[in-house]
Amino acid sequence: MDNLPKGIVNIIEFFSKFQGIGKKTATRMALSLLNKTPEYHSNFSKSIANLSSSVSECTQCFHLCDKNAELCFVCINEFRQKNILCIVESALDLLAMEKSNTYKGLYFVLGGVISPMDGIGPEEIRVKKLINHLEKNIYDEVIFALSSTMEGESTTVYITDLLTKKSLAKNITRIARGISLGSSIQYTDENTLQRAYMGRSKV
Amino acid sequence: MDNLPKGIVNIIEFFSKFQGIGKKTATRMALSLLNKTPEYHSNFSKSIANLSSSVSECTQCFHLCDKNAELCFVCINEFRQKNILCIVESALDLLAMEKSNTYKGLYFVLGGVISPMDGIGPEEIRVKKLINHLEKNIYDEVIFALSSTMEGESTTVYITDLLTKKSLAKNITRIARGISLGSSIQYTDENTLQRAYMGRSKV
Repeated sequence: MDNLPKGIVNIIEFFSKFQGIGKKTATRMALSLLNKTPEYHSNFSKSIANLSSSVSECTQCFHLCDKNAELCFVCINEFRQKNILCIVESALDLLAMEKSNTYKGLYFVLGGVISPMDGIGPEEIRVKKLINHLEKNIYDEVIFALSSTMEGESTTVYITDLLTKKSLAKNITRIARGISLGSSIQYTDENTLQRAYMGRSKV
Repeated sequence: MDNLPKGIVNIIEFFSKFQGIGKKTATRMALSLLNKTPEYHSNFSKSIANLSSSVSECTQCFHLCDKNAELCFVCINEFRQKNILCIVESALDLLAMEKSNTYKGLYFVLGGVISPMDGIGPEEIRVKKLINHLEKNIYDEVIFALSSTMEGESTTVYITDLLTKKSLAKNITRIARGISLGSSIQYTDENTLQRAYMGRSKV
């Protein structure tokens, strides 16, 4: 890294801090910026500088929204089904669900899953806010769409218990766990197959 | 993309313009920035804004160097062998050669390879500047280290012809083409094996 000007090394360091971006990719990215105009650099730079001041959280579901907006694109949409709520971990997961183009109800973004190993307990994510939300709003169905990891599964169980105890949701469901589309049985791991078998449905 | 605030969409667009960064990675990168402080954003932003004003080209070999420096880290190093010149395509290739820790001479960065399909002729890269350089400086050996692609190979041949005609270099070589370390013969493509066979040397 002593072999490049400081101005580039700075940028490489920033780029390589992104998850999944190694030193090599970061170097390639930084050097490719040299082929752009100073005006391009200035626009790019401004978009990063203005990030915090241009983005806010939806006051209802905690998805991201514009700073001056109170509600996100889902909550503001009058055509969404207001009687079902889908609990997701993050904005990225919400976008993935939206892309699947099936769910038309409202969301609640938890902001993480419970993970004692990483020091993330119920206090670190929006469990209390979810309870507040469910005390004020009644839904016909509350759907958990958390990742099928140890942490995701135990967060689903933990919150379900809580909601049941407080009688805050009558109908709690979770999205199906099974073999993914296009995957062959022989390459599917045994836990997934187990789940898929247990979740079998009529043809 | 209508599902995210404009401030983030802007950044996603910039990130996804980098080669090898798809929309999904760009989105993940942009959202991960939200977990950083405004101060971090400001520093990141400044490093990009200042890029053009902080980076320059070495007046001798055209590698990148600090704005106020005239020579890059190679040309300024008095311990380098001044009698051999290695021709590389880009700053990235120069860094790769340096990492291999074998070559201790000087470089000349061509700034591309001749590629008629992409409209890149000898005028678009530093062929004239290389000739100027070789008219002023005499080397015992000029080594081509261009990529082993059609374009790299033909650029090597084109410039070698030119230098031979003008009697600008007495000893022109190219780095060896053969099987890469750790690769097995059965998976090596026939062209590489052909080259490796032709380039065989005594054990």
